[in-house]
Amino acid sequence: MRPVYNLIAGESLERLAALSDGIFAVAMTLLVLDLRVPANAGITTERGLWDALAEVGPKFIPYFMSFLTLGIFWVGQQTQHSHFARSDRNLAWLHLGFLLAVTLIPFSTALLSAFLAFRIALLAYWFNIFLLGAMLFLSWQYALRTGLVKDEVTPEMRSAVVRRIVIAQALYAFGAALCIISTYLSIAFIVLVQLNYVFAPRIRLLYRL
Amino acid sequence: MRPVYNLIAGESLERLAALSDGIFAVAMTLLVLDLRVPANAGITTERGLWDALAEVGPKFIPYFMSFLTLGIFWVGQQTQHSHFARSDRNLAWLHLGFLLAVTLIPFSTALLSAFLAFRIALLAYWFNIFLLGAMLFLSWQYALRTGLVKDEVTPEMRSAVVRRIVIAQALYAFGAALCIISTYLSIAFIVLVQLNYVFAPRIRLLYRL
Amino acid sequence: MRPVYNLIAGESLERLAALSDGIFAVAMTLLVLDLRVPANAGITTERGLWDALAEVGPKFIPYFMSFLTLGIFWVGQQTQHSHFARSDRNLAWLHLGFLLAVTLIPFSTALLSAFLAFRIALLAYWFNIFLLGAMLFLSWQYALRTGLVKDEVTPEMRSAVVRRIVIAQALYAFGAALCIISTYLSIAFIVLVQLNYVFAPRIRLLYRL
Amino acid sequence: MRPVYNLIAGESLERLAALSDGIFAVAMTLLVLDLRVPANAGITTERGLWDALAEVGPKFIPYFMSFLTLGIFWVGQQTQHSHFARSDRNLAWLHLGFLLAVTLIPFSTALLSAFLAFRIALLAYWFNIFLLGAMLFLSWQYALRTGLVKDEVTPEMRSAVVRRIVIAQALYAFGAALCIISTYLSIAFIVLVQLNYVFAPRIRLLYRL
Repeated sequence: MRPVYNLIAGESLERLAALSDGIFAVAMTLLVLDLRVPANAGITTERGLWDALAEVGPKFIPYFMSFLTLGIFWVGQQTQHSHFARSDRNLAWLHLGFLLAVTLIPFSTALLSAFLAFRIALLAYWFNIFLLGAMLFLSWQYALRTGLVKDEVTPEMRSAVVRRIVIAQALYAFGAALCIISTYLSIAFIVLVQLNYVFAPRIRLLYRL
Repeated sequence: MRPVYNLIAGESLERLAALSDGIFAVAMTLLVLDLRVPANAGITTERGLWDALAEVGPKFIPYFMSFLTLGIFWVGQQTQHSHFARSDRNLAWLHLGFLLAVTLIPFSTALLSAFLAFRIALLAYWFNIFLLGAMLFLSWQYALRTGLVKDEVTPEMRSAVVRRIVIAQALYAFGAALCIISTYLSIAFIVLVQLNYVFAPRIRLLYRL
Repeated sequence: MRPVYNLIAGESLERLAALSDGIFAVAMTLLVLDLRVPANAGITTERGLWDALAEVGPKFIPYFMSFLTLGIFWVGQQTQHSHFARSDRNLAWLHLGFLLAVTLIPFSTALLSAFLAFRIALLAYWFNIFLLGAMLFLSWQYALRTGLVKDEVTPEMRSAVVRRIVIAQALYAFGAALCIISTYLSIAFIVLVQLNYVFAPRIRLLYRL
Repeated sequence: MRPVYNLIAGESLERLAALSDGIFAVAMTLLVLDLRVPANAGITTERGLWDALAEVGPKFIPYFMSFLTLGIFWVGQQTQHSHFARSDRNLAWLHLGFLLAVTLIPFSTALLSAFLAFRIALLAYWFNIFLLGAMLFLSWQYALRTGLVKDEVTPEMRSAVVRRIVIAQALYAFGAALCIISTYLSIAFIVLVQLNYVFAPRIRLLYRL
């Protein structure tokens, strides 16, 4: 006895993919607005420009980290999405929640960029990553439970997606906890975890993840 | 005896979907530009950053509300769109009018964000929601009248779309009217209505909507 | 004896449509950044906010006009695009030139918005519209000449597209010329021409266009 | 014995195309934000506006150059992409690396725009072009080596893509090296190379490239 409207709403997987790609594209490109070009007033020599750029330099770290974050979760969402047989409005809203977390990344990045040595900024950034993972986790669980996942997806693949999210989030949480020692250590650890996921190196230990 | 050009213009449903998803994606992501990161000059302690962030805090409310607004109308437009058999240039322009209202949301949100306690700001925001609903209403009526809706769409579904828009707009208008008492009450009511549409809870009364 | 690379480059009509929709979506949404929300410092009453908004008011005119401009040329490009059988790299570059003119619209709009009464600002805006029309004209001529247009497109449709562009540009040019009397008259005339194309009213005279 | 997750991740060519088109669209449109409209305070005559616009004039050069850069690499990526039979997560990440370089173009452009006569700004811009070429080169090599390229792609086409990238990069590098004499000479040379690729003129010498 669900209302008719809800039965017919939010069913298009193509539209969800298009909106997601759009939001990822805009968020990834907006990151660049943080890399502010030095004002040209007062800079008259190559040396002066070099020094001014050297000050912008550290901002490339959160920029690069956030591009990796968005890239990893784009691949992650796409992987889930390609295994959905169909959508419904609940799944659409779970992904809108995920996309809300995506749109927050430019904010978290700008915050971290301005306050690299501050634990609050780092924890805010981590919380954003956590939200991304949590929404993907809920989306997958919901899709599994309600039969929205394609039949051809094997039990092994079903649990591989879950395992990947849980282990990655555990590593990110450990990285964030390192801020007790130093926020730079946290950032270094998180970037290393991300690079591991990007390059998927053939190291035994990480291989099993 | 209509001009030939008008007969062949604006017929692509795919292009309309792509433009819509693009505009929604940009509007949703631009919202984040309102969440301005505090200037780092003068902030030297974790405590100082915490206080500065606490000031940004209230801006998350319009941000969240606008993301819900855009999400709801994205689902709404998509639901209509997936039931169109084809388009014509009038339908394309009705949806361009709808998209005009979508692009205004970042402005309305920034206005409300800066003037949370002002009735004019709240009424401007409500008017933007009203425009979104009105354009979707006109689009559906036009499509029904000119036979652009797929044959498989039952009369029940046809009226479900109309009913959904009218009831939602009535609730939003009531919420806006509450600003006579307090704009915060208006915002709380509108967000509750929106969350109801997001979660579609199994409450009897709202179920019938 | 053309280089192999040029033979295989730029052939995807789908990618061209996707890039176009993306650029139109971003340009349409960026227009809103010109509608700057008044600074809240110093505004303490509803009346004060009303007065501040009244000052923003005139900026809605170029905003609305530019949305119409982009909408009209989006429909125009889409109409051509849907009649292409395939693309080549020259056609891709003609459309990239068209898209360059699309990305300039936010600049022309901001210029006109800041200098509503200045003829230079109005002529710059007109020149942007002229560029849009000229690129679409060249694109259609090129496609006709090189056989990229679908066989099913009748000679009548072929010339309807040309006629539409030429007549519209003549009207825009006349509108721009009215700035000798007043830029406001120019803007009013151009908006009226645009609304004519949006609503396609059944007025005899304009009907023949 | 690769982890299951990696086998199923990043396989969608459609999503990669959509993300790419989105990022190109946003980057191309963000370029316009550099063309800042003169502040209207203090400008009271047509002549005053003309002088103010004349100062913005030189910024159109990097704007135009960057639009060409993005257009050329958009065509280049699309050409590769249309010859892929399928994707895997490594190819997806190579293209995400390419897209990272795309998002840096608005930064490099703004830098060059503010410091047209500075060699560091020019070399930063060149390095960005180099990154774009390097990523496309790696992507093609990877796809050739791992059999992701369609069977119908002839050996001649395979090497045409490689040759195009290598020769273009050699020309860009030569253009950048000209900054020893003058950065304006560099810019003029690079724009000429780009226009050659846009118009593909029938000049013998360049024909062979």
